[in-house]
Amino acid sequence: MTDLSIPAPGRRDRKKQQTRAALIDAALRLVDERGLDRVTVEDISEAADVSPRTFFNYFATKDEAVVGDQFVDPAGVCDRFLAVGPGVPVIGAILIAMVPVLEQVETNRELWFLRMRVMARNPALLAGLLARSADAEQDLVNAVAQRVGVPADSGYPQLTAAVTGAAVRTAMVRWAACDGARSLIDLVHEAFGILATGLTDPISVVPAGAAGGTSEEP
Amino acid sequence: MTDLSIPAPGRRDRKKQQTRAALIDAALRLVDERGLDRVTVEDISEAADVSPRTFFNYFATKDEAVVGDQFVDPAGVCDRFLAVGPGVPVIGAILIAMVPVLEQVETNRELWFLRMRVMARNPALLAGLLARSADAEQDLVNAVAQRVGVPADSGYPQLTAAVTGAAVRTAMVRWAACDGARSLIDLVHEAFGILATGLTDPISVVPAGAAGGTSEEP
Repeated sequence: MTDLSIPAPGRRDRKKQQTRAALIDAALRLVDERGLDRVTVEDISEAADVSPRTFFNYFATKDEAVVGDQFVDPAGVCDRFLAVGPGVPVIGAILIAMVPVLEQVETNRELWFLRMRVMARNPALLAGLLARSADAEQDLVNAVAQRVGVPADSGYPQLTAAVTGAAVRTAMVRWAACDGARSLIDLVHEAFGILATGLTDPISVVPAGAAGGTSEEP
Repeated sequence: MTDLSIPAPGRRDRKKQQTRAALIDAALRLVDERGLDRVTVEDISEAADVSPRTFFNYFATKDEAVVGDQFVDPAGVCDRFLAVGPGVPVIGAILIAMVPVLEQVETNRELWFLRMRVMARNPALLAGLLARSADAEQDLVNAVAQRVGVPADSGYPQLTAAVTGAAVRTAMVRWAACDGARSLIDLVHEAFGILATGLTDPISVVPAGAAGGTSEEP
């Protein structure tokens, strides 16, 4: 069976990843406390115990550090997706390829809740986030096109990448809203399950007229 | 049969809509020519032949005028959606509710191509666009929850609003990319059709290894 886990990095790469993570963590915590406009690269570097010069080895701007690595290793997602056996449908293969990433997100849940709160409160950061997401999404468009053998600019690959991305984002918002009471992987599974049914109408669970309120589920 | 068209406004509202449209048009054309940082509210007002004071009756900031009314009448979409007969599945009802909006977009295609080009080149505008989209999406989440009788914070309404929004955006990008050679409604229909199948893998149309290139379709 193909190994779909994320390979462990060497010591040098591990050191770099630690510094990068420390800078992202410091940037998020400071912006959460003070707001984006009141945090400088010097503040972030000092909080992460590195020089501003070192900061710029990792990020070109303050905003980049705050937005951080939204998803670890987007190229890895495409590699894993293409390695899934041909009997699995495309959205099942995307889910399998996403699982190691979702597990990493789940492991760093406090950081992710912090990141989602910071992004929601500082919409100016969204432009940078979208630019990164667009690149990762285009990689997935190309991988889907390759897997199913249709042109990358035809309807299916573009729609599938956009829609599965929207499903993952929706699951993350729900995960943060319930403060992790349900696991992220469970919520993503549920979302992909609904996608796979073609968004058929669910069975009504509340009396007519009572909808639109809050759920009694956790 | 329920009338699902957009009602015609009275004269006073029509005048207001004309001024608003003139301001959006001027803002887009100037930003397209000069870039966002080189256009002022005074420039936009002058180009639309109104005073800056009048400008501020319509928009709070320059960016707001550029982002404009991304979708005419989002509340109308929800009203039409809820008015569609109960035999129609949710995503079919969303499509029916969207058609009058898509027709308006198609009628103003040059303005929309311009708007999409300006947004792509000035990512700083995306934060404002996303804030507006989020409000419209939440309205649809509530309407879907009401129609199917599930809580608004359960999985189905949130996913359905996010995913159909992503499908419409993907169709708009494809529409602009083919310079309107295929109609927007046709592309949205195609996207919703793929959603309704549960994103099942399409039939391969190119030989293995040749995918990822450009399509031969229009």
